[in-house]
Amino acid sequence: MEFRLADALEVLESTPATFRALMGGLSEAWTAPNEGPETFSAFDNLGHLIHGERTDWIPRARIILAQGPNRRFEPYDRFAQYRESQGKSVAQLLDEFERLRAENVTTLRGWQLSERELALEGEHPGLGPVTLRQLLAAWVAHDLGHVAQTARVLAKQYREAVGPWREYLPVLDR
Amino acid sequence: MEFRLADALEVLESTPATFRALMGGLSEAWTAPNEGPETFSAFDNLGHLIHGERTDWIPRARIILAQGPNRRFEPYDRFAQYRESQGKSVAQLLDEFERLRAENVTTLRGWQLSERELALEGEHPGLGPVTLRQLLAAWVAHDLGHVAQTARVLAKQYREAVGPWREYLPVLDR
Repeated sequence: MEFRLADALEVLESTPATFRALMGGLSEAWTAPNEGPETFSAFDNLGHLIHGERTDWIPRARIILAQGPNRRFEPYDRFAQYRESQGKSVAQLLDEFERLRAENVTTLRGWQLSERELALEGEHPGLGPVTLRQLLAAWVAHDLGHVAQTARVLAKQYREAVGPWREYLPVLDR
Repeated sequence: MEFRLADALEVLESTPATFRALMGGLSEAWTAPNEGPETFSAFDNLGHLIHGERTDWIPRARIILAQGPNRRFEPYDRFAQYRESQGKSVAQLLDEFERLRAENVTTLRGWQLSERELALEGEHPGLGPVTLRQLLAAWVAHDLGHVAQTARVLAKQYREAVGPWREYLPVLDR
């Protein structure tokens, strides 16, 4: 599928509601556990997306659009949410994510990006030269990856409870 | 995590809204493609869940609760949705799933299952003896597995569009 901004916006605008539906009605017994050391709980996934709204996607898009002498992105802290989410509830994080995403989508729409702008490049600290188009596609895929990851970590809490069904439910051992 | 009916209901009641948020705002360019032969598109995932509401979870629970002489479940048709969803829109399927799930959750709540009932057994055609508790846990994990699968097949549509980010987005190659 070719990247088109209108398609990307469909996903970017849906993700806060997806997380609200997926996690908003769940008790901590579901949202707190993770998949082992250095992995994310459902709660951590949400905090990670919030950190991305603040520091990753739109700030990096700004660096690309500015086309200044230094187009290198700041490295991204994959574990920032362990600090930043402390003491917050799932409900607070869902509200925060919804608000930040809405602001960022408004910013993105406001740019009315041209094909020429989508082809501009920045410098990823680990991946090298990347275009704005690739950055926006990665934002979308990153959202969906964390929806999948969140559903998976929730499912794994029932890895034992399903008994013999484990064999038919590959998500429990992924 | 031990199985508790109240926890299971939290997920079972959330899933229709999760699919509505995840897919309701997407164009066919997102929802129609699959991951290759004999795999499910986002559209197929939703149809598969609907088929399960009609023929799988609650009908199997009834077989267990009846404790008749034949407690063997009917085999489940994993590809029934290719027929049953034909000519329907995502919006129609979302409504149908929401309605069927609400009915099934009402049925499940109405049973007011005791620990004794949760331990009753049926006969899975492929897995052998399974308890009602395991069936209900599998229903929950199956929901979450299909949320993960749907998010993954959507993400994969941008496998090429993300360019070098593919390396950082394991969901694109899972």
